[in-house]
Amino acid sequence: MQSLKMIINAVSVLLRGVGQVVFQNNPISGLVILTGLFFASLTAGAAALVGVIVSTLTAVLLKVDKDLIGAGLLGFNGVLVGIAISLYSSHNVTLGDLPVWKIWSLVVMGSAFSTVVMMALSRFLSPWNMPALTMPFVLCAWIFVGSVEHTVKLETPGALESYAYQLFQPEIGHRIEEYRQYALETWYIGIGKGFSEIFLQDSAIAGYLILLGILINSRISAIMGFLAALLSITAAMLFGVTEESIRLGLHSYNPILTALAVVLFVRFTISSGLYALFGVVVTVWVSLAVGLALYHLEFPVYTFPFVIVTWALLLGAMSVGRLRYILPAEALT
Amino acid sequence: MQSLKMIINAVSVLLRGVGQVVFQNNPISGLVILTGLFFASLTAGAAALVGVIVSTLTAVLLKVDKDLIGAGLLGFNGVLVGIAISLYSSHNVTLGDLPVWKIWSLVVMGSAFSTVVMMALSRFLSPWNMPALTMPFVLCAWIFVGSVEHTVKLETPGALESYAYQLFQPEIGHRIEEYRQYALETWYIGIGKGFSEIFLQDSAIAGYLILLGILINSRISAIMGFLAALLSITAAMLFGVTEESIRLGLHSYNPILTALAVVLFVRFTISSGLYALFGVVVTVWVSLAVGLALYHLEFPVYTFPFVIVTWALLLGAMSVGRLRYILPAEALT
Amino acid sequence: MQSLKMIINAVSVLLRGVGQVVFQNNPISGLVILTGLFFASLTAGAAALVGVIVSTLTAVLLKVDKDLIGAGLLGFNGVLVGIAISLYSSHNVTLGDLPVWKIWSLVVMGSAFSTVVMMALSRFLSPWNMPALTMPFVLCAWIFVGSVEHTVKLETPGALESYAYQLFQPEIGHRIEEYRQYALETWYIGIGKGFSEIFLQDSAIAGYLILLGILINSRISAIMGFLAALLSITAAMLFGVTEESIRLGLHSYNPILTALAVVLFVRFTISSGLYALFGVVVTVWVSLAVGLALYHLEFPVYTFPFVIVTWALLLGAMSVGRLRYILPAEALT
Repeated sequence: MQSLKMIINAVSVLLRGVGQVVFQNNPISGLVILTGLFFASLTAGAAALVGVIVSTLTAVLLKVDKDLIGAGLLGFNGVLVGIAISLYSSHNVTLGDLPVWKIWSLVVMGSAFSTVVMMALSRFLSPWNMPALTMPFVLCAWIFVGSVEHTVKLETPGALESYAYQLFQPEIGHRIEEYRQYALETWYIGIGKGFSEIFLQDSAIAGYLILLGILINSRISAIMGFLAALLSITAAMLFGVTEESIRLGLHSYNPILTALAVVLFVRFTISSGLYALFGVVVTVWVSLAVGLALYHLEFPVYTFPFVIVTWALLLGAMSVGRLRYILPAEALT
Repeated sequence: MQSLKMIINAVSVLLRGVGQVVFQNNPISGLVILTGLFFASLTAGAAALVGVIVSTLTAVLLKVDKDLIGAGLLGFNGVLVGIAISLYSSHNVTLGDLPVWKIWSLVVMGSAFSTVVMMALSRFLSPWNMPALTMPFVLCAWIFVGSVEHTVKLETPGALESYAYQLFQPEIGHRIEEYRQYALETWYIGIGKGFSEIFLQDSAIAGYLILLGILINSRISAIMGFLAALLSITAAMLFGVTEESIRLGLHSYNPILTALAVVLFVRFTISSGLYALFGVVVTVWVSLAVGLALYHLEFPVYTFPFVIVTWALLLGAMSVGRLRYILPAEALT
Repeated sequence: MQSLKMIINAVSVLLRGVGQVVFQNNPISGLVILTGLFFASLTAGAAALVGVIVSTLTAVLLKVDKDLIGAGLLGFNGVLVGIAISLYSSHNVTLGDLPVWKIWSLVVMGSAFSTVVMMALSRFLSPWNMPALTMPFVLCAWIFVGSVEHTVKLETPGALESYAYQLFQPEIGHRIEEYRQYALETWYIGIGKGFSEIFLQDSAIAGYLILLGILINSRISAIMGFLAALLSITAAMLFGVTEESIRLGLHSYNPILTALAVVLFVRFTISSGLYALFGVVVTVWVSLAVGLALYHLEFPVYTFPFVIVTWALLLGAMSVGRLRYILPAEALT
């Protein structure tokens, strides 16, 4: 009995970890999202599982505060790190030109380090009571891409040759002849993939499952996330980027996360709703700028635009009378 | 009567916003500087006005602290963002190949966001009681250049093809054959344009009007700014950079700002005066280094060198017995 | 008598400054290390001396806290800045195509500024009670490389054409044909040069003298430093980098510093020992990633990887139950 309860509890914590990627502290949400991930790619699903387990276990070993672990907050970065590392080496896995243990040991190493970075960044942000968001994932994934992928005996196509990275190249935006191709499809596939790209997946159906997972836990989050997807596509169209990059969700996953974060960390009013939507447009803008800068460094963007815009929006909200900031301890757990 | 007073008050706040770019909380200074801007370029003057109005209004809407707004501190970044965005699209405006509303909506958007960034950065810097300086402008201008300019249907020459950016290329420094051209003109035009480049303007007369604006409010600031211009040109000559880049004021606008900031935030003594001049030389040095790094990312330097050197100098001044740091609340308002 | 005591005291402070580069607050350690530097290169030894004297004197002039000065904490960044600037201009010195006073005035300027940056960064890090480590050196050396080296009439080969920088290029890692060359020599020379590269020197004997200097003051530090060298070479081999870069110590000097720092700032237990070794592997990883990013900016890596990984590890240690962070005030002085 006792051990059954412990197992259920452990599974619940891990599923909350999956849900926390989109700020949902709810095991059912996590389960629906994980189903979406497995649907999109078996490797991604497995990597998410390994990532969340390793990063949470590392937190237990290091004796991190139990409430934080219980809310899945030491797992969500592991989910993303696991997916990112396995994804950008997956070509290899299929071809078998690299021993599988090597990739999975990198996944384990990266997920474990994401916990250290999460604790470090949380402590760094403590004077402002700010959440670390997915910055630990971004940092660990950059380390992987910048070191292993470029230097090591890993003859994979890698992040920088992935279709998404190529498409996000700033130069592409100038292909003016493609403007007319915006279609209805651009919208409903773009929205779905906008949600799935949060988890680095290219599947509209997985995306709608992720949206469902959010809806299960919070109607306001689901609605604001959906509006963010719509608005980011509109803004991207006004900016004149390619139809392909919109349909892939590349201009939407960061803005969706921005909206979800503002809804959670700023008390919901009409003002804060408008503030969130303003943040959505700014995130589209910043994503392009960051994309340009990182393109020259040969690093992918990941969710870095979301993190910096959201930090700016939250710090701003703390300092003005119109908005009220909610502490992470209240908001997330 | 009441409404007349309100209008005068509003105009005064906006003019202070213009003056605060060079740390002068004085509407007359602001008026003289604004005149200089309109003299240099009608577009720049108009953009400065739109920028200061939008950023200040955004602050009012968000209910920012009234003393801060009243001192023009929520306006000066808007001034610079407005000028930067309009400037780097102005070629288009003249040719008319882009609807004017598009540029001005970008100016509005950018200026509004500069207020959020200003509040965010001020909160971020609050543990050290440090001023945000023009960093909000730098960040918003980078976002614009990195996104809109590179990606969007904006077929303008843009920041990166501007004469100033080209000249500031690190490679240029090696054209040793140009050394002999340093002349008296290099000095008196270089000093003037050093002041006008603070506002991204290429006009020695506008620059001397800006210096006059500073002098109206503070003699010490005017003298130190002038010395900074002289010293930065001397240092740039010793470093052997091209005469052209010196005459354009490109090595002077950051050092001038450094000197003005140190004079304001460190109690004025002989020691702090020397500290400011030391900072001037370091800023020339840092400008070149930052120029190199950003050159590879295709981002302009703006006032980033001034900001980081000044932050270092102010944090340093807080920690040593020889200097006394003055809190922004006392210094700026 | 009194003045003799003062001189001995001053010499002791300067030697502690040299020792503090590897976290040893001990004049004998400093003397042994300085001997190693002079053995490796007369210029490096002289530059280290000038650097430590100028940066310490600047601190005295600015009236920095006497305990900090006395522990050599305002000298160690000067040591490294002095060596870096003189080193990357040394070709010139030998050829004589540049007046010597120019280089040495840059050394003096850079060392003096390193003290301001040290005080600034220490103040910036004070909310977390974190040590600035060698970040002031990294920043000042970057300023030098990015400005003087690229822009000025200094026709030296410079940092970017140095053998070490070339070898550390990310592309090199792909020369798979060199794998077989790992040999016993790779180990014992790699370990020695790993220690000497902390001071930018290419001499295994100097490296072992530095290790001896550490051993004189702290056996645990010497053992952990040695283990870090071994482990970093193992990790670098598993990552498949070239034998040459390993033998030059390029993958080891950052990890060694990480281990020395963790030993000092986290109470030593089996857990913290494992944490340090985990940090060593992460540092190898991060060094490669940072190397890639900075390669595109044309900046050398210096000890930046050590600094950011160590900050992450220390911030992490503050927040978890398994480890205990020791305040710099206790640890360093």
